[in-house]
Amino acid sequence: MAQATIGNSEFDRDTALRPRMPGEGDGAAPGTAVYDVDLSEGWTILGAVNGGYLLSVLGRALGDALPHPDPFTITAHYLTTSRSGPAVVRTQMARTGRRLSTGQASLFQFAEDGTEVERIRVLATYGDLDALTDDVRTTAKPPAMPPLEHCLGSDAVPPHLISELTGRLDLRLDPATANWIKGEPSGRGETRGWFGLADGRPADALSLLLAVDALPPTTFEMGLPGWVPTVELTAHIRRRPAPGPLRVTVTTRNLAGGFLEEDVEVWDTEDRLVAQARQLAVTPRG
Amino acid sequence: MAQATIGNSEFDRDTALRPRMPGEGDGAAPGTAVYDVDLSEGWTILGAVNGGYLLSVLGRALGDALPHPDPFTITAHYLTTSRSGPAVVRTQMARTGRRLSTGQASLFQFAEDGTEVERIRVLATYGDLDALTDDVRTTAKPPAMPPLEHCLGSDAVPPHLISELTGRLDLRLDPATANWIKGEPSGRGETRGWFGLADGRPADALSLLLAVDALPPTTFEMGLPGWVPTVELTAHIRRRPAPGPLRVTVTTRNLAGGFLEEDVEVWDTEDRLVAQARQLAVTPRG
Repeated sequence: MAQATIGNSEFDRDTALRPRMPGEGDGAAPGTAVYDVDLSEGWTILGAVNGGYLLSVLGRALGDALPHPDPFTITAHYLTTSRSGPAVVRTQMARTGRRLSTGQASLFQFAEDGTEVERIRVLATYGDLDALTDDVRTTAKPPAMPPLEHCLGSDAVPPHLISELTGRLDLRLDPATANWIKGEPSGRGETRGWFGLADGRPADALSLLLAVDALPPTTFEMGLPGWVPTVELTAHIRRRPAPGPLRVTVTTRNLAGGFLEEDVEVWDTEDRLVAQARQLAVTPRG
Repeated sequence: MAQATIGNSEFDRDTALRPRMPGEGDGAAPGTAVYDVDLSEGWTILGAVNGGYLLSVLGRALGDALPHPDPFTITAHYLTTSRSGPAVVRTQMARTGRRLSTGQASLFQFAEDGTEVERIRVLATYGDLDALTDDVRTTAKPPAMPPLEHCLGSDAVPPHLISELTGRLDLRLDPATANWIKGEPSGRGETRGWFGLADGRPADALSLLLAVDALPPTTFEMGLPGWVPTVELTAHIRRRPAPGPLRVTVTTRNLAGGFLEEDVEVWDTEDRLVAQARQLAVTPRG
């Protein structure tokens, strides 16, 4: 099998959008656009579509609809559970400037009677990562992590946690943060791992939106198994990632009142912090 | 002067909204509402309206428009610079559930020809802080900070940085993070301080939206004077604050490519982490 490329990969095919032409009854209002998309079963976990994949679909739509190509800051509120199958994305421009533009997008699926049900709403500001200055004054340090070949791949994951998504990703978890796999969670709110796509597609700004919500939740290692629904996720894409596998860290410091935050950093092979993200999620009952 | 209360204070008067009745040509669409508001000059810095005050205005509108009272997670994109004077807030419901509801709001001001110009767009999910469970598994630690009386109040701030906003707040900066006041910035991306309102109004969920964007920017202490425009700010309100002054920490770890993040924690007098926030801002030229 030929190496997947940006533009020719599972991720690109499954986030491909079909713009509706103005005059098809939709998208005619100034500053708006409408896209059809098929949410692929390949990115589901126990039937629910992965939030990072959904964010990538919406991120691609806004990259098409806005005059700037790259998400600098994007926030998604997850309203109802998405399922694989047909969906519609509607975008709306809020403001365009020389350096930045802001817009919103919603993804809808269909009730039995055909009416649209909103799944996710996104608000984002886009820019051009290639236009950034070279200044770097970062005090953040890349995570200390074992080399990829000493980390745990999908063959280590318990069978009942293997899902369609597992087959699309090349995840290698730092064993120090994956004690839950042996049934001995450490109680610490940390998950770290190497992230890549199974078909070898290189990372870009869009696939970073997948990377920020692709690792097992920190709650597994905190001894709280179960589903962790995302309420809201915000990602800042700070730099175009260099080639090679990404290192992703997820940290939870404040699990309280039935909610928790997951703080995510994504580092590239040049030791640059390429994305920062945080989500608010619902604590599983454990 | 009598002690200000929640509901009777500068902050409450200056965030007060006048709902337009349906039939006044506005707000008639289902799930939408329209409010008039006067942005007070009291919350400006060098003529620009403070972003935390603006977030509080929009947060109050959504608290009125949605069935739940408290912002659990709220994201604002700052599109154009707000000025003191009249403004209009338009809200729209996205989804309502038993425990959470999601909506958006935009604040507009007026061009010379009277057309509306959008200043800020907000997307938020609301809930009821009183309905949260009592579970707490927080590993985050309150900041080590000198007592309030050993911190630097507005009398220590250089006159050219005194603004209308200074008079509305009771800020006391940790001297270790305010070396810029002496013209000797440490270069570290940290600002810490005690936060209160000058008229003594107690803190609540709404005033936390002010607290997350009220301290001097970390760039002052990094030796980069100048304006730091916020692109986007997201705040998670995690708990209703206990009475007494709040401790606020602001940290920047990744200043790169002309942008920086400011990570904010707000702690109450019971050592609870009541709010977490992050903003993406533009690096001043220094």
